[in-house]
Formats: sequence, C-alpha cells, structure tokens
Amino acid sequence: MTSTVDLNCDLGESFGPWEMGNDAAMIELATSVNVACGFHAGDADIMRRTVEMAKAKGVSVGAHPGYRDLHGFGRRPVPGLTSSEVENLVAYQIGALQAIATAAGHKVTHVKAHGALSNVACEDDMTANAIAKAIKAVDPSLIFVVLANSKLVTAGEKANLSMAHEVFADRAYDDNGLLVSRSKPGAVLHDPKVIADRVVRMVQDGAVVSVTGKVMKMRTDTVCIHGDTAGAVEIAQEVRKALDAAGIRVAPFKTAP
Amino acid sequence: MTSTVDLNCDLGESFGPWEMGNDAAMIELATSVNVACGFHAGDADIMRRTVEMAKAKGVSVGAHPGYRDLHGFGRRPVPGLTSSEVENLVAYQIGALQAIATAAGHKVTHVKAHGALSNVACEDDMTANAIAKAIKAVDPSLIFVVLANSKLVTAGEKANLSMAHEVFADRAYDDNGLLVSRSKPGAVLHDPKVIADRVVRMVQDGAVVSVTGKVMKMRTDTVCIHGDTAGAVEIAQEVRKALDAAGIRVAPFKTAP
Amino acid sequence: MTSTVDLNCDLGESFGPWEMGNDAAMIELATSVNVACGFHAGDADIMRRTVEMAKAKGVSVGAHPGYRDLHGFGRRPVPGLTSSEVENLVAYQIGALQAIATAAGHKVTHVKAHGALSNVACEDDMTANAIAKAIKAVDPSLIFVVLANSKLVTAGEKANLSMAHEVFADRAYDDNGLLVSRSKPGAVLHDPKVIADRVVRMVQDGAVVSVTGKVMKMRTDTVCIHGDTAGAVEIAQEVRKALDAAGIRVAPFKTAP
Amino acid sequence: MTSTVDLNCDLGESFGPWEMGNDAAMIELATSVNVACGFHAGDADIMRRTVEMAKAKGVSVGAHPGYRDLHGFGRRPVPGLTSSEVENLVAYQIGALQAIATAAGHKVTHVKAHGALSNVACEDDMTANAIAKAIKAVDPSLIFVVLANSKLVTAGEKANLSMAHEVFADRAYDDNGLLVSRSKPGAVLHDPKVIADRVVRMVQDGAVVSVTGKVMKMRTDTVCIHGDTAGAVEIAQEVRKALDAAGIRVAPFKTAP
Repeated sequence: MTSTVDLNCDLGESFGPWEMGNDAAMIELATSVNVACGFHAGDADIMRRTVEMAKAKGVSVGAHPGYRDLHGFGRRPVPGLTSSEVENLVAYQIGALQAIATAAGHKVTHVKAHGALSNVACEDDMTANAIAKAIKAVDPSLIFVVLANSKLVTAGEKANLSMAHEVFADRAYDDNGLLVSRSKPGAVLHDPKVIADRVVRMVQDGAVVSVTGKVMKMRTDTVCIHGDTAGAVEIAQEVRKALDAAGIRVAPFKTAP
Repeated sequence: MTSTVDLNCDLGESFGPWEMGNDAAMIELATSVNVACGFHAGDADIMRRTVEMAKAKGVSVGAHPGYRDLHGFGRRPVPGLTSSEVENLVAYQIGALQAIATAAGHKVTHVKAHGALSNVACEDDMTANAIAKAIKAVDPSLIFVVLANSKLVTAGEKANLSMAHEVFADRAYDDNGLLVSRSKPGAVLHDPKVIADRVVRMVQDGAVVSVTGKVMKMRTDTVCIHGDTAGAVEIAQEVRKALDAAGIRVAPFKTAP
Repeated sequence: MTSTVDLNCDLGESFGPWEMGNDAAMIELATSVNVACGFHAGDADIMRRTVEMAKAKGVSVGAHPGYRDLHGFGRRPVPGLTSSEVENLVAYQIGALQAIATAAGHKVTHVKAHGALSNVACEDDMTANAIAKAIKAVDPSLIFVVLANSKLVTAGEKANLSMAHEVFADRAYDDNGLLVSRSKPGAVLHDPKVIADRVVRMVQDGAVVSVTGKVMKMRTDTVCIHGDTAGAVEIAQEVRKALDAAGIRVAPFKTAP
Repeated sequence: MTSTVDLNCDLGESFGPWEMGNDAAMIELATSVNVACGFHAGDADIMRRTVEMAKAKGVSVGAHPGYRDLHGFGRRPVPGLTSSEVENLVAYQIGALQAIATAAGHKVTHVKAHGALSNVACEDDMTANAIAKAIKAVDPSLIFVVLANSKLVTAGEKANLSMAHEVFADRAYDDNGLLVSRSKPGAVLHDPKVIADRVVRMVQDGAVVSVTGKVMKMRTDTVCIHGDTAGAVEIAQEVRKALDAAGIRVAPFKTAP
C-alpha cells in the first residue's frame, strides 16, 4: 500500500507579456511542477522565475515539453514528424530547462509531455518511444511521468527509465483503465469532495473504480492537479486536505537513488 | 609563443526547410564550430545533425547563442533587455545544445555569442557580464570565446572563466586593437594569400599589425573563419594551408583540465 | 472650439490562448479602437472577434501595427530597419486587418502605430515617413492618428494624409507640448476626477496646461484611454462621464469625405 | 478548345535571411505567380520584392496562403482548426498581400492554397469551403485556383467564385482524375520532353491520359510549374517552349470582367 503520493501541476505557461494560470496558488498545493519549456508556452525568463519559485517552496521541477506550437498552445498534433524529430525537440527542451534550473540552483527531476504530444504518445508507439529515448539520452536518471495503461508505460519500460505513474483526480476511467474521452458525459468530475475522496481511495487501495463499477489495480505515484480555473484550485485544495486527513504523506515522487 | 591555434566557424544556421552556409565544406577546415541554438537560426534537428557531423570529424562544438530574432538572424540589437533576461536566454540556449550534444554522444566545450548579442556585449558591460554569468552558472568548465580588447574579456575575467581569445583573419585592426568598423574602407580584407600570411604571423608573433602599422601584442587562441560565401571558403582553405606549411598545429583550443 | 471628441483605445492584444486587457469593458467606453495586427499581439481570429465586437457597438476600427516582436509585445525598438522595411511591415498589417474587417462587414478607418514603433517614429523622421508612406500607398483615405508636436505630424502633412491629433488623458506635458518622460515624477496622472476635468478642458479650450502652468494650444481630435488595469477602466469611465456632463459629444473622428 | 493557357509558379518562399527557390528564373517562365504570405514562408519585404518583380515582368500575382507553420513550411496539416479559423487565416494573408501589391502598384488577381492547407482542402469540405468563403468575403472578384476533381471545385462553385482549373505537368493521374500519390511508383514524371508534350496535349485536347490509358476530359486553365530544383527549371523551360511551338498562347488566366 502506498502511503505517499505526489501532486503534480503544470506551471510556467505564460509567454512574454501574457499571463496564464494561477502559479502562485498552485505552487502551494503541488509537490512537483511541470515547467513549460518555450515550445508551446513559457520562455527563458518565465522558466527561471518558475524554477526559483519551486526551489523556494521545496517543490520538484520537471520538463514539460510540447510540440513547437505557440499559437495553438501545443494542443494540436503535428502530423508527420519523424521519430528523430520528436526525440530532438524533447531533448532540446529538457536541456534548456536543465540549464535554467542549474543557473537557479535547482535540479530537473522528471519529464512529463504536454498536451497533444502527450495525447499522441499515449496511443502511438513511435512518439512514445522517441520521448523515452530523448530522456534516456539526455539524462537516464530523469523520471518519466506516464499515464497508466498508455504507450508511455511500454516506452518507459523499453528504455529502462524510472517512471512515475500518474492518475487524474477529476477524470472518469473506463474498464480498460483508460480515461473516458472528454466528449462523453461524465468524463470530467466536478465535485471537490467526490474528487478528493476518490484520490484518497486510489492511493489507499492502489486501485481505481471505473464508470461501470469495476475495481482496477492502478499504480498511483502522482496525481495531476490543474490550476487553470478557480474551481480547479478549490479541487486541488480539497484533494490536499483529504490526503492530509487520511494520513497520506504528500511529497515529490522519489528520484532514482 | 603559440604553436597551436584553433580555427572556429559558425555552423548550423539553417532553419526548417531553409539552408544557409556551406557546413559540409567548413567542417573540413575548422577545428571548432559554433552551433546556432534556435533563437537566431537553427532548430533541434539541425543542431543534432551539426553536432553529429562535428563528432564524426573530431571537431569541438560550442553554443552560439543569439538574441531571440529569427527574422533578423540575430543581427539586430534588442534594446531594453535586463541583465537577467540576457543571462536566461544564454543559459537556455547553452542547455538546449548540451542536451542535443549529449544525445549525440558529443560534448559542448565552449560558448561564443552571435551577431548583435556579441557586438553589443563587446561594448556593454551589462550584456558581457550577463553572458559570462550564464556560462558560469550553467557550466563553469565551458570556455568563453572572446574578442580581444572587448568587454567580453573583462567579463570573462570577472567570472573567472577559461577564455579563448579570438582574432579575425579577414578584418583590419585599429591602434587600440579593436576591429575597424565595416563601414570604413579597408575594414575587410579579401586576398586569401594576404589573409593567410597575416594569420600565420599573428600566431607566430602573438601580435597583430594595425592599419597604421603599429604592432600590438594579441593573444590568438582561435581564428574566426567564415563560410557564407564562396570566397570565404577559399580564404579558409588558404589559411589552413598556410598554417600547415608554417608548422603550426591546428587543433581545438584546450578545455579546462 | 471642438464640441466633439473621439476616445480611442488599443484592443485585441490577446494572442492564441493568452488573454490580455479588458476588451469587453473598453469597447463600451471607446468610440474608436486600434486593433493589434499579429506582429506584436493579436492573430487573425482575435482580429475577427474584435472587429465584430466593434461593428456591433458602432465603434470605428483602426490598424495598430507594431514591430515584429511578439515576445516583447512590440515595446522594444528594432534598430536597423530600412525605410522600406518599415513601410512594408505597416502595409502588411493594415492589409491584413482590412481583409478581416471586410470579411466581418466592417471597415478600417484609421491607423495608429503601436508601442516602440510609435515611440521611435515620434522622434525619427525616417520611421515616421515610412509609416505615413505605407498608409498613403495602401489607402490614402485612412486617417493617421498622430501625437501632437511629434514627427508623426510632419510625416502626415508631407504625405498629405488626414490626421487625428491625439492627446493623453493621464500624462503630463512639458512646455514644448511633448509628453513628460514616464521616468520623471508626476509624468503619469492617477486621479480619475483630475484626469476627466483635464480632458474636458482640453476639448473645450483646445489647449493643454503644461507642468509649469504654461497654456498651449493643442488640437484634440481623440483622447487615448487605456484598459490594461482596473484603475484605467475607472479613469476611462470618469472621462466619458465628464465629457457627457459637459455636453461634449463623444463620437469617432470624422473620416475623409 | 483552349488555345491559351497560364503557367503558374509558387514564388517568394524565402524568409528573412534565408533564400529559397529560383525566383529570378521562374518569373521568366510563369505567367502568374503565387506569393507566400508570411505564414509558411515569405515576409513583408520578400512579398514586396516579389510583387515588384512580377509587375516589372507583366506577370499576375496571387495570394498563396498556408497554415501558420513556418518551421514546417506549411507542409504539415494543422488538425483541429475550425472553419472560422481557416477562413480568418486565409483572409488575413490575402489582405496582407493585397496591401503590399497596392503599395507596389500591382494587383492581386487570384488565390491558390499552399501545401498542407491545399492537400487537406482537396479532400475536406470544411476546409475547402472555408477557403472559398474567405476569398468571397475579402474580394469576390479574386479567381480561385483549384485542382481538378477536388473538393476545391465544389467549394468554389458553392461560393460562386471564378475558378482557374489547374493541372500538374509532372504528375500522373489515376482513373478518377486525381493525382497518383507521390508514394507510388510513376507518380512523378521526370523527362522534360515527355512532360512538355503531355502539357501540349492537355491544352489542345482538353483531356488527360491516366496511368491506365484512360482519356479523361479535364479543364486546363493553368499548369503548375515548379522551380525548386535545377531539373524543374529545365522542365518549365521545355513546357514553355513546346507550348510556343504548338501555337498555344501562354498568358495569365482571365480575371472576372
């Protein structure tokens, strides 16, 4: 039984003069943050500021690489990239954040793909393997944050990477342990108390209950929390509170020894 | 007296589908190459290809960071950046190349600022110090390639960085040991033989002769060669030939032990 | 004596997923809006949405061209552009907005340069003339919004363009009729009532009082109002209210007959 | 029977300091050129230069809008765009070129979609209709260059646009009158004489012969010629020569009266 869990959140998704998200509130709730690396959002200054904030709060930082798609915020797939092109764009972004983190006296501990890059990789072996290959090549001690039952897991195993299995607090799962598509009713949960209880049970039982009531074993190293909306911050607060109340330690996932 | 000298050249300045320069010819002549890092030119794929080519030829690679100015090729100053903004953009670019180099099984050994970033830094303490600070913070073993008698030297000393002093084979110097402005007649030399002889004397004598005939001591660790034009490749070939003929070893500048 | 005045405001300065400004509030207060054209902010979709909103409210739209500088929001000068390059980038942006406006059933009536492009042009003949030349070449019936006593006025006269003279409600003027630099104390006014009274007097008297008390004649066709901060919206509301109370008609500046 | 045909070519696909294509050679062979508008290639200065060159040669200019994808040269589809987003990006690009053309004393006469935008539109009603809608909304007198038997034709008819039907000189057609996929053997023809003869017959007979020998009626208003490779220029020269020899007039397609 897991008695420790990580709460991860995407941060540093502003760009130049444009602000996005509620980084100040979320850094208080998360134990690890995924920092945009300039391709779908973020820039060198925002990365620096985000890493410094994370360091000050004792929060782990990871690279959050996305497709080269600023205008679309990395939410659109980029068809036609080769394996090598995916590997290079991931390596580039990890390295950029590593240098910024080093300059700020902090350290990159993990990598979590963003948006469409992640969505595509969950179903496409080539993309998943290219991401894993980039991590392995740049720094094999980096932890690969993966979605349960996705191609990311297979790719991480193949590359022999340490992985942190991620669950979504506010998303329904189907009987295959995959996320119910957002287009279906009931795919997204909204009640903070329901969501928080669900997370506690996920961690305590090492299992998730599907929409049909099926109980499925699911490794839960880290729970993804969002900060984009006011409701999301409240949900994250409720999750954190419920974990505390249940005696579950909230801490960054362990890095390779 | 120096009996070894490095020949450095800017490479990897294509972008996406657009080619620039004569990388294949120049890699045969240079002993170290400065690789564009995606801000003024280059992208993750071109960086990878360039680093792999350098590795195959036994040539050192350095980061060639520029201002965020793709359209202007980093040749236009970006007024109003703070010291921290300059530091961050340099750190970001170094890190990006380091990751790509690591993935390619090679190593970044030096940093040379590009275009307007270099020109501004040569005269502006803040910019020069910010570049040096970035190098120091990311990896203090990186060699800082500096223009003789510029603010870059002072900044490198202040940051206690190893430096490689660079001379220009095809540019006239004034009595202060600074480059004669390109807008003045005679600023740029064109005769390959004249240029090659001049380089040999620079290395053998550790001195350069100014436009008025003044002989000035000048440390010469690396000579900048260009590949942008057909004439430039010929000049570089002539320089390399003359150095060989004079028994001067052409090799990458030494990295910190 | 002017009995009608326009209130102009910059709008459409979001980009992709990033929001900026308070467009919904400002469109209620302005009689003409300056729409970012994609170089320093804005994109084709935001332009379309902004123009449609302006059309629905009966508000005039103008192009608000800036330097190609998304990351810096067009607030940084771009040194080294030729006259022709400035002309082309202004023409390009005007045309892009004209097409979007036509598609939305509205019409571009004026052009006001943004940020650093405007600041540079106020003092630099070449830049001011290039902007005026672009307007003249694309559509000579477009009104050129100019800052009193700046090079923009001279350039507009030279190009024989209709001009709308702009004053700043919340900025102090020196004895030459120029804006006091923001770096000086008292340069920016903050009290909504003071600012509103000042605008009423500017329009009624056709004059502005300098920081030393000098009364200077100043043509006032349009007053610039900002929407970037909560305070700014309040100021704009106060200005609009005071103009109404003084019986001054608030309406778009007249376009060429 | 058609006794006049247009030869169209993509031009102005350089970007900033990077050159692409052989514009000087192709402008001598084409009677209408499609000018990149800054999204997949080109910039305001290159557009200006290209339009001026076309004007000097008496060649028609058209807008060549592409997806917002500079790095990928507009060759990658951008999934997930709405109809309105496609319409806006096409309108924006047309308008930008119109303004540049007006400033240069020339006129935009047609629109031809570029790369992935064109490929997607050939098979996707939404995209094809959005392009047609943009043209209609910005300037209904613009001619829509369409690929025979594609969704572009249906969209153009629906929008009641004048169309120029385009054939490819160097591509094989299947029995449905569609281009054989480049991935199949024989899809691309290479022999200049074969290609030139084929074009002459297409124009004289108003028909094309498929890979299986089927003769299919095909309207041929314009023939696409490429300038990307040395071979391509030679092909274009051969086509032009063969048309001249056959007494077929080579001239821009007629614009709406």
